[in-house]
Amino acid sequence: MAEALREKAFAGTKAIDWVRGLTDEVGPRLSGSPQDMAGVAWALATLKAAGFTNVHAEKVMVPAWQRGVEMGEVTAPYKQKLVLTALGGSPPTPEGGIEAEVVEATSLEALDAKGAAAVTGKIVFFNKRMERGSETRGYGYAVDVRTGGASRAARLGAVGVLIRSIGTDHNRLPHTGAVDYVAEVPKIPAAALTIPDAEMLERLLQSGKPVRVRFTLTCGDRPEAESANVIGEIKGSTKPEEIVLLGAHRDSWDLGTGAIDDAAGCGIVIEAARLIGLLPKHPPRTIRVCLYANEENGIAGGKAYFKTHQAELDKHAAALESDGGTDYPIGFAWTAGPSAEPFVKEVAAILEPLGAGTLSPGGAGADTGTLKIAGVPMFAVRQDSSRYFDYHHTANDTFDKIDPEGLDRNVAAVAAFAYCAASTPEMLERIPPDKRAEPRRPVKPVTRTR
Amino acid sequence: MAEALREKAFAGTKAIDWVRGLTDEVGPRLSGSPQDMAGVAWALATLKAAGFTNVHAEKVMVPAWQRGVEMGEVTAPYKQKLVLTALGGSPPTPEGGIEAEVVEATSLEALDAKGAAAVTGKIVFFNKRMERGSETRGYGYAVDVRTGGASRAARLGAVGVLIRSIGTDHNRLPHTGAVDYVAEVPKIPAAALTIPDAEMLERLLQSGKPVRVRFTLTCGDRPEAESANVIGEIKGSTKPEEIVLLGAHRDSWDLGTGAIDDAAGCGIVIEAARLIGLLPKHPPRTIRVCLYANEENGIAGGKAYFKTHQAELDKHAAALESDGGTDYPIGFAWTAGPSAEPFVKEVAAILEPLGAGTLSPGGAGADTGTLKIAGVPMFAVRQDSSRYFDYHHTANDTFDKIDPEGLDRNVAAVAAFAYCAASTPEMLERIPPDKRAEPRRPVKPVTRTR
Repeated sequence: MAEALREKAFAGTKAIDWVRGLTDEVGPRLSGSPQDMAGVAWALATLKAAGFTNVHAEKVMVPAWQRGVEMGEVTAPYKQKLVLTALGGSPPTPEGGIEAEVVEATSLEALDAKGAAAVTGKIVFFNKRMERGSETRGYGYAVDVRTGGASRAARLGAVGVLIRSIGTDHNRLPHTGAVDYVAEVPKIPAAALTIPDAEMLERLLQSGKPVRVRFTLTCGDRPEAESANVIGEIKGSTKPEEIVLLGAHRDSWDLGTGAIDDAAGCGIVIEAARLIGLLPKHPPRTIRVCLYANEENGIAGGKAYFKTHQAELDKHAAALESDGGTDYPIGFAWTAGPSAEPFVKEVAAILEPLGAGTLSPGGAGADTGTLKIAGVPMFAVRQDSSRYFDYHHTANDTFDKIDPEGLDRNVAAVAAFAYCAASTPEMLERIPPDKRAEPRRPVKPVTRTR
Repeated sequence: MAEALREKAFAGTKAIDWVRGLTDEVGPRLSGSPQDMAGVAWALATLKAAGFTNVHAEKVMVPAWQRGVEMGEVTAPYKQKLVLTALGGSPPTPEGGIEAEVVEATSLEALDAKGAAAVTGKIVFFNKRMERGSETRGYGYAVDVRTGGASRAARLGAVGVLIRSIGTDHNRLPHTGAVDYVAEVPKIPAAALTIPDAEMLERLLQSGKPVRVRFTLTCGDRPEAESANVIGEIKGSTKPEEIVLLGAHRDSWDLGTGAIDDAAGCGIVIEAARLIGLLPKHPPRTIRVCLYANEENGIAGGKAYFKTHQAELDKHAAALESDGGTDYPIGFAWTAGPSAEPFVKEVAAILEPLGAGTLSPGGAGADTGTLKIAGVPMFAVRQDSSRYFDYHHTANDTFDKIDPEGLDRNVAAVAAFAYCAASTPEMLERIPPDKRAEPRRPVKPVTRTR
């Protein structure tokens, strides 16, 4: 039956319609924005129309950081516009912006090595390159300057931070993303330059002349706002209280329409579950779809799910999250107790014709990963991310970047997995306690660095 | 000697330095802007430093249209931001913008067919697709909605015009370009949507619900400003009064830094001439480089050159313009009297190892083409334009799009041609009078249309 589902989905699904709906009818849906709640309404209506049961919203309070005006320019040695965007969580600059000399660092460690004397009063430019690759480790390697750079620079007395966008394109479109400010140092404004702008700044710095930059941001935090995880179910036939959780995130960054990140994932999990719901007989366990709030800047949705469903987490047989756009499946990642291995190998054999039969450790998503501490087995269809970071978190993340065939391949993989997980006789062995606190994304340097 | 020049340039030149200078040190240089004059200063200093003689600026009065705020949104059936940019020459919208229902047309003719009743009071959305190709005819076919659409729509009572960007990419970066407003109808505001935004608008229109759009532009004309053609020469050894003219344009649109359009051409012609100047013996005729003002929105530089040099046009042996970025040479275009054919074939044989030995009619550039009416023989190195229109007239036209190898291949081709044209014993036969008024770019439909 899982193979039949795979073949049916591979031949074409309605997933593209769900993705079109969320991007064209709702559009950008930053946590706490009016469109965030429009997204909740869309998700409720869509799950109901698609035949799900127990469709409801579970309230989540989310941060409501808001973008504003953003402007940048090189003021010396030449006058040049800089295209940049505020990083999520950044405070505004003082009125009129910040102007200071630029100090360049290619990593957090390289900045530390410069010391406070070289950094105080300056704008730090983190010029760390992300490598393209089919896996996400290029991202994992480079992203620390986005998440941690601002506080690291503030500790040394910097007045602002600019980063080379964490991305693999050469478009004049910056990549936003969240900053993790630490409490004990001042919160300084942080923005991402487009890669062409970062390379221009790099060339100007190479000339040896002092380079000065001004940038202005009017972004900032607003009071927490109400949002929701939206849930719908395909009820299990014989063990309806046991749950296979399929997650994706409903929120998005504000620059694009959140098509690959993560309307695609929403479309994939909705459609995978819907196809199972169309079967003459549902599998024993319930397939639960959760469209999470606030993945991008806080994981409030994932954390709220953990709290709200704590009493039934031991009934969660498996969790899978889809958040990799529409690129082709290339493997299957899992973390569970060792006795789950025969089940996983059976799934891998079914995914093999989709190119996703290679097994690897991992599988926890940003949202579902909050359940790892409770031992819920984690699964993920790994996707080729070679092109994903050309568009990720930019204004370019729009519906035209959706590959309908890739979308359907992912639906096929997720549906086949979900059917198996909802049908396997015994509950899968939980993640051993000593593996429940492992980081989600191993950070290891890529082979080629600058 | 032409072959030796070709080989030398093919092995690497300094053209990249000239391109880097004009883009990094001057940047965007829209006609009539402060950076336009900064570009004149850069060109004078660069030509002098590169060893040219008779380096001087020839004053040209240019239009000084200026961009301002630009905002767009879909207001019904859903609220969505639209990324757009004013087209060059557009007047501003009234304060608060224009809001109206959208009427779609896939061509000028399709709009005419709708008639005034369907268009009056509406915003016309020209949704004409440009096809990708190694030749520029996809551009020539599609661009009429940009140049002519606003007046054609105004004639039918439209209040504003939006076009699908004339380009081949899918980036959220609009393509600007000039509008030709006709005198007898109102000048209505005109802007280009990015291709992803145009496709979203198309999808919303396909839903059958009325689609309304609001857009605001604060652009507009300012008084004419002073600019200049900048000229430098490699003096001929025995017939210095006879001229081989190598042209490129120094101005650019304002969104990017004008790297492929046309710092590349400036770099190519400067370097081609400079390499000839380094030879132990200059060829008989003078190689004159002209870095034109105002190609993009008026051709004031080309027209001024015609007037200023009218007395010596019969001494212009040949003219070549470089305005195709750094993409590889794929052929050689020419228009001259029939007796020039043996010369052209000799040049083609020298260009053959560069992949540019295929002959075709044409050769007049936007700037040099003003001399066609005087019969000056026209030449051009044809370049593969398959990727050129991904970036053309967008914020993405930046230094990182320069292909150093392609740049040098073009230098090789132009240097070899220029040496031949400056050395051939007799003046080349002029363009026959009946061919002097032919349009520069034949407009023919591409094979695949929507």
